[in-house]
Amino acid sequence: MQILLTNDDGIYAPGIAALKHQIQDIGQITVVAPDIEQSGVGHSITFSHPLRIREVHLNNEFIGYGVRGSPADCVKLAIYEIMKKNPDVVISGLNMGANVGIHILYSGTVAAAVEAAIMGYPSIAVSFEITEQYADVQEAAKVAKGVIENIIKHKLPRGSLLNVNIPSRPSNQIKGIKVTRQYARDFKETFDRRIDPGGKAYYWLMGTDKSIHHEEGTDISAVNEGYISITPLRYDLTDQSLYKKIEGWDWNI
Amino acid sequence: MQILLTNDDGIYAPGIAALKHQIQDIGQITVVAPDIEQSGVGHSITFSHPLRIREVHLNNEFIGYGVRGSPADCVKLAIYEIMKKNPDVVISGLNMGANVGIHILYSGTVAAAVEAAIMGYPSIAVSFEITEQYADVQEAAKVAKGVIENIIKHKLPRGSLLNVNIPSRPSNQIKGIKVTRQYARDFKETFDRRIDPGGKAYYWLMGTDKSIHHEEGTDISAVNEGYISITPLRYDLTDQSLYKKIEGWDWNI
Repeated sequence: MQILLTNDDGIYAPGIAALKHQIQDIGQITVVAPDIEQSGVGHSITFSHPLRIREVHLNNEFIGYGVRGSPADCVKLAIYEIMKKNPDVVISGLNMGANVGIHILYSGTVAAAVEAAIMGYPSIAVSFEITEQYADVQEAAKVAKGVIENIIKHKLPRGSLLNVNIPSRPSNQIKGIKVTRQYARDFKETFDRRIDPGGKAYYWLMGTDKSIHHEEGTDISAVNEGYISITPLRYDLTDQSLYKKIEGWDWNI
Repeated sequence: MQILLTNDDGIYAPGIAALKHQIQDIGQITVVAPDIEQSGVGHSITFSHPLRIREVHLNNEFIGYGVRGSPADCVKLAIYEIMKKNPDVVISGLNMGANVGIHILYSGTVAAAVEAAIMGYPSIAVSFEITEQYADVQEAAKVAKGVIENIIKHKLPRGSLLNVNIPSRPSNQIKGIKVTRQYARDFKETFDRRIDPGGKAYYWLMGTDKSIHHEEGTDISAVNEGYISITPLRYDLTDQSLYKKIEGWDWNI
């Protein structure tokens, strides 16, 4: 089985190393990942400058291919230029931090999996909620392995994408797995306005306390309650109900 | 009427200036846009460095606020920090180049409108297909104005987003308006591999010839045929049909 493994935290990130270690016996793994962190880049692609592929070694061991580009770039380059055989599954992660709710739209981890799905491959984005209380990435990667094996066993269809989020707790305290929908409301993330030494204003985007959000059946609520959340995602953004509404408008302008 | 106007081509781009000129009598326009081009950034957001807001003047005239960030950042900053009143509508464009099919996912223009929709505002992304044959942005902005006025007249609901694409032809040759769905197939964009003077490989992402793609009822076919395409978009990416399928899988791992 051919597995393409990527992420948005970068090829040296602990999450991708931990996940690679865990899933190495599932198949032949090719790592193609950004050579610097790309968190929050969303589904960006690079066309204003060329991309390069660099063989990356760590402790004298070849670990994969680094790309100075976005996670979506990595998937395209991996499949068109690097891998000799097409992947049977594309896995993006293990991301350090949950990708739930509208953060799915900002996430490079998810974007890589979306890109793979567009190209027709089954794909899985895997993220791990990090908190001050718990951040054992090795154990989270073990949990991720179990979920990934189950998904592979059930034969995820071509072009399908599952967004997996693992809650921030030891595996023996995880309550189970819930298939969820995306929490599709504003997190109301605002800015912290500060003044620099020169007297000018600058603005930090403030993260939200995700635990305040709750809606039964959603990804965020499942993770908040201690479940692994699995949300099937699509890349056709057409809003069918709005379509029906505006179809009836007078468009003779 | 309060209008927030943004884009991804940057605050000095001809498209945003042309559109601002055309719609200035519709309402009070606040321009908040990236101070450098951000095409292809997708729905990226900035949290690894702080943002600054700069008052931008052109030919001794104040034209708006420039932000060294993504289009989505601009929308957040505009609404939380810059505008005294909330916008009645958020408009992103006029983008130089169509945003149809899966390019919707890569587009900063669309991401700005998505961000506004998440925040609860009606929003419109407007893009103009540029070709070698035709690229009159002033005339395209006039066409855009007509479409925008019609959308405003019909009262687009809160949190709704319409993605408008104007075909590359003089307005008297535009065949009309079609409400469409997103063309949701791979454009199969590959890479051009070149060798630098030092003998090392580099890769340019190759754009697709969009005219080869056709599927009745989609955004890309409408634009290819000379219609203005209007696609309602959503930001809840949950795939309901895949949801039903995987819900029945055995998740006791």
